Amino acid sequence: MRIAIDAMGGDYAPATTVEGAIEAVNEFKGVSVILVGDEQRIRDELSKKNVRGLPITIKHASETVEMDDAPLAAMRRKKDSSIRVAVDTVKAGEADAILSAGNSGVVMATAILVLGKLPCVERPAIATVMPGLKHHFVLLDVGANVDCKPSHLYQFAIMGETYAKYILNIERPKIGLLSIGEEDAKGNELTKEAFKLIKNSHINFIGNIEGQDIYEGEADVVVCDGFVGNITLKVSEGLAKTISMMLKKEIIDSAAAKLGGLFFKSAFKNFKQKTDYSEYGGAPLLGITKPCIMSHGRSSAKAIKNAIRVANVFHQKKILDIISTEFNQEISRSAKVDAKK
Amino acid sequence: MRIAIDAMGGDYAPATTVEGAIEAVNEFKGVSVILVGDEQRIRDELSKKNVRGLPITIKHASETVEMDDAPLAAMRRKKDSSIRVAVDTVKAGEADAILSAGNSGVVMATAILVLGKLPCVERPAIATVMPGLKHHFVLLDVGANVDCKPSHLYQFAIMGETYAKYILNIERPKIGLLSIGEEDAKGNELTKEAFKLIKNSHINFIGNIEGQDIYEGEADVVVCDGFVGNITLKVSEGLAKTISMMLKKEIIDSAAAKLGGLFFKSAFKNFKQKTDYSEYGGAPLLGITKPCIMSHGRSSAKAIKNAIRVANVFHQKKILDIISTEFNQEISRSAKVDAKK
Repeated sequence: MRIAIDAMGGDYAPATTVEGAIEAVNEFKGVSVILVGDEQRIRDELSKKNVRGLPITIKHASETVEMDDAPLAAMRRKKDSSIRVAVDTVKAGEADAILSAGNSGVVMATAILVLGKLPCVERPAIATVMPGLKHHFVLLDVGANVDCKPSHLYQFAIMGETYAKYILNIERPKIGLLSIGEEDAKGNELTKEAFKLIKNSHINFIGNIEGQDIYEGEADVVVCDGFVGNITLKVSEGLAKTISMMLKKEIIDSAAAKLGGLFFKSAFKNFKQKTDYSEYGGAPLLGITKPCIMSHGRSSAKAIKNAIRVANVFHQKKILDIISTEFNQEISRSAKVDAKK
Repeated sequence: MRIAIDAMGGDYAPATTVEGAIEAVNEFKGVSVILVGDEQRIRDELSKKNVRGLPITIKHASETVEMDDAPLAAMRRKKDSSIRVAVDTVKAGEADAILSAGNSGVVMATAILVLGKLPCVERPAIATVMPGLKHHFVLLDVGANVDCKPSHLYQFAIMGETYAKYILNIERPKIGLLSIGEEDAKGNELTKEAFKLIKNSHINFIGNIEGQDIYEGEADVVVCDGFVGNITLKVSEGLAKTISMMLKKEIIDSAAAKLGGLFFKSAFKNFKQKTDYSEYGGAPLLGITKPCIMSHGRSSAKAIKNAIRVANVFHQKKILDIISTEFNQEISRSAKVDAKK
């Protein structure tokens, strides 16, 4: 797999993107990287490491998108940005996948415009892997679409199922619809309509799942609109941080602070490892014609490396072709159901 | 204050409701309680305690609403339920406030039907107090209205401000709109419109607040629709439970389990106390003409007692009158603005 990386995207870029790319080509066989961005700065980073003979090339881009650039304006004004050039590289057939830890709104808008959506997909969705009590689960959409129609949620369910099957290796993933009551008729107008669509599909739908149950591991895929998904993700991040700070304070306040703190520290380290986002590396924008992986702005080199791994699995297992096949099967299946009526 | 309590509502009722009522009348001066429900069962509970001379009376209701009863059906079929009789008692002027730990959908529907809404309030909202890193904050709506219009969120902001001012004693509460980006123009269709309405009001609006920031204490009141609010509340409950279970497991797995566990236990106990819902007792249904407090189904006697305290403050401080005045001021204020145009 040849991957085009937006080398300038992310809070610590290009240091982390270059380092992650080097780790990836060393670790993953058959992976080659095109680093897109300010050639001189990328060369400077590469010169710090031993990269002789590694399948890494540079493609210059004169502009960089900032984290607070508005998507549409940035797309119009910065035609030679590292994001745009990386996406164009994929479009031109010179790379198989794209990765960016930069402004996700710009990455998304550019990917949709340049690479286009899969047939049957009205809206692409950002899928993220979340840590759970028993195992991980996929949450989507976490922010690509803030105002959704029922058919969008239905499509997210199909894409999420394929993702869980091939990336998390779950044979028959259980799909839940995030709602405010377990009963079929509970929810808002959007989820109640989406419920019917998903129930009528071929997927292993376990019905509504409530907020308190998503971390218990009942569902392998949790489907919601991008507004609710983003708030779920962010509230979880914020609360985890708050709880850890509160507990740390309790430890410090306790009389036997040093001793207790020691044990706590070790327990907390293990916990943190289990829930470390960098292990999953990136969130794919599902529904685009090519693998498009978006990484957290705070991505470390390790997170970049793992995001490249995810892109590689996408490419190797032809996950986007599988998603298209799934949709075609859904269409022919519902056509048969209609014909029988 | 005379409060009508749905004695049969809650997982451990009537034991907890009766015990909470006894604690409340002992602790809060001027509070009298009407326990509504199965007279014999309530008498049995009262007979276990020394209640001689306490201002507690019983009002019989022959039916009990179950937790899984559908609101409209239960309202139609169970005309002599403890919820209905308690609400009717307030309507008849025999009590000043109502409290129930029972089926919240039925409580809400009955209160709206029998007691009615305040003028200017299109939809009542459930407000809940959440623990934060620095201080507590109010989250509303957490489930009364799953499909909202911008004007509803604006009204929630007004009601939430009054609640924070008089119940949490915050002089000039900061109001945030739960959204998926801090910038004014970020959000979904609903929040973008609501943003403009709230910005044009007199309240201390700090703009959008993201999910990760609500526990940091930036806002004293976090406004959202009932679907998003309920998911925020439930995801938080689920995640807090999951983190505590994961950390406990790490402690047990660690070599020096016993010693470390001891310190952890004490730290966790303090943390739990700080975040104990029973301290706040109940969530008011704001926007009804009389104080209506809904408690958690798992309410302990302490939670019931604290919910009675909240109802008492509502009554003593005439919070519902203040909310009406706030709305009237908003109306005359915007009329002046319009006249100037």
